[in-house]
Amino acid sequence: MGVRVAMYQGPEQSSDVAGNLAAIEAAAQRAAAAGADLLVTPEMSVTGYNIGPLAHERAEPADGPIATRVAELARAQGLAIAYGFPERTAYGVHNTVQVIGAEGTVLAAYRKTHLFGELDHSLFVPGNDLVVQFPLGGLTFGLAICYDIEFPELARAHGDAGTDVLLAPTGLMAPFEVVSRILVPARAYENQLYAVYVNRCGVEADLTYCGLTCAVAPDGSDLVRGGLGEQLLVADLDPDTLAASRALNTHLFDRRGDLYPTTPDWRHPTQ
Amino acid sequence: MGVRVAMYQGPEQSSDVAGNLAAIEAAAQRAAAAGADLLVTPEMSVTGYNIGPLAHERAEPADGPIATRVAELARAQGLAIAYGFPERTAYGVHNTVQVIGAEGTVLAAYRKTHLFGELDHSLFVPGNDLVVQFPLGGLTFGLAICYDIEFPELARAHGDAGTDVLLAPTGLMAPFEVVSRILVPARAYENQLYAVYVNRCGVEADLTYCGLTCAVAPDGSDLVRGGLGEQLLVADLDPDTLAASRALNTHLFDRRGDLYPTTPDWRHPTQ
Repeated sequence: MGVRVAMYQGPEQSSDVAGNLAAIEAAAQRAAAAGADLLVTPEMSVTGYNIGPLAHERAEPADGPIATRVAELARAQGLAIAYGFPERTAYGVHNTVQVIGAEGTVLAAYRKTHLFGELDHSLFVPGNDLVVQFPLGGLTFGLAICYDIEFPELARAHGDAGTDVLLAPTGLMAPFEVVSRILVPARAYENQLYAVYVNRCGVEADLTYCGLTCAVAPDGSDLVRGGLGEQLLVADLDPDTLAASRALNTHLFDRRGDLYPTTPDWRHPTQ
Repeated sequence: MGVRVAMYQGPEQSSDVAGNLAAIEAAAQRAAAAGADLLVTPEMSVTGYNIGPLAHERAEPADGPIATRVAELARAQGLAIAYGFPERTAYGVHNTVQVIGAEGTVLAAYRKTHLFGELDHSLFVPGNDLVVQFPLGGLTFGLAICYDIEFPELARAHGDAGTDVLLAPTGLMAPFEVVSRILVPARAYENQLYAVYVNRCGVEADLTYCGLTCAVAPDGSDLVRGGLGEQLLVADLDPDTLAASRALNTHLFDRRGDLYPTTPDWRHPTQ
């Protein structure tokens, strides 16, 4: 029972699409050898993230050549793969994470809803579907991307929607280590779910990514936590642990929904 | 500029009301000597917390003898004092924190809105005012009690209401150290405010309190953090630090209020 998830923090050297796909292929081989059911890779793992206008040049539809290649890798290694890429749609270019299952079919695609600073706003249009889920191995998975996890509202919506494991590919840079060390464990505990946060590493233009990829249990404790450099981490996600923790920690039921104000709808000036 | 806050983690030995008031008086003297503008004491600091039906015997109105005595201490030492006690009202007994200013007048009173487990539910009726604030030294203070801080919704409402410093007297017991180490810093960072969490210590009936009183800056870093035993901690809260952090971290403005669902109103069976 349960799901074994592998987290690929890498590659350390940014590359072109073919080079990144080769790194993901190597990670998928190692993940499969470790018995993983799912490999999670960072935000914009296939194309690079802080690459300026190249993000638009490398953008493609959700069923484009990148998806075709990732589906081949997933089938070849017999595991699901979550990867990030700039998705071209009728609305513009989204910062998207797509999950392709071991049979090569798309399980879910999520478009980042909370855009981060000038970097995201200059390149991407925001997604408008807050809660995107998919089933795997008897657990319900949800998707977030980087800055999304800093907002308790998104993870709370997943808690209410029954998400068991919230996957968050990210591109977290120094000096914001607090996000991985504090906010990710908070989301896990306050919503009683597993949080899996998979970061980039190395330097990309003017950003130094801070690693700290982690899988956090619903009691807020780290199952595994990475350092700064390229690495593959593995953790087991267990429905019995979830059930026991939820029986003890009843936050979702102890809320005072009768008292909470609605969130003001202040759109960012560039949206 | 700014406010110096003293945090009293104590007393280690639970006592009767006169004994607890004497401990608070000694802490107020030390806090005043340290130049503090405000002394914060734990949840139910005047009466004890895990004291069963004694909590009802010791309950009194907000302007009862306890308030009179705390006002004398505040005037004598020239600082504001936040203290906890069981408040008797027309609705029943509330788990309340009241703040009395250096002039001896009541600045604010907050009744715990999120009741914790059998302990709270067997003794108290919940408060229904989510956001209670008071001004001090040019900053806007807000109040929470213990379990309240575990809910991102309450701190978020304070962020939207302009709270600069969220005070949370608490009675946190082992093995829930994660609340002080993870959730309190998360509230500070995600809402860009100071969080001041003041815990009990020692053993009270079947509970072993875990200390870890802390003041956390809006970047999520600890200004000061206590250990297990009785102690007085001091921290300086600075409006310039708040302003600089808020300019860098724009979470409140980057939310997607257009996407967030409202919270289901599931009342606890005993409410």
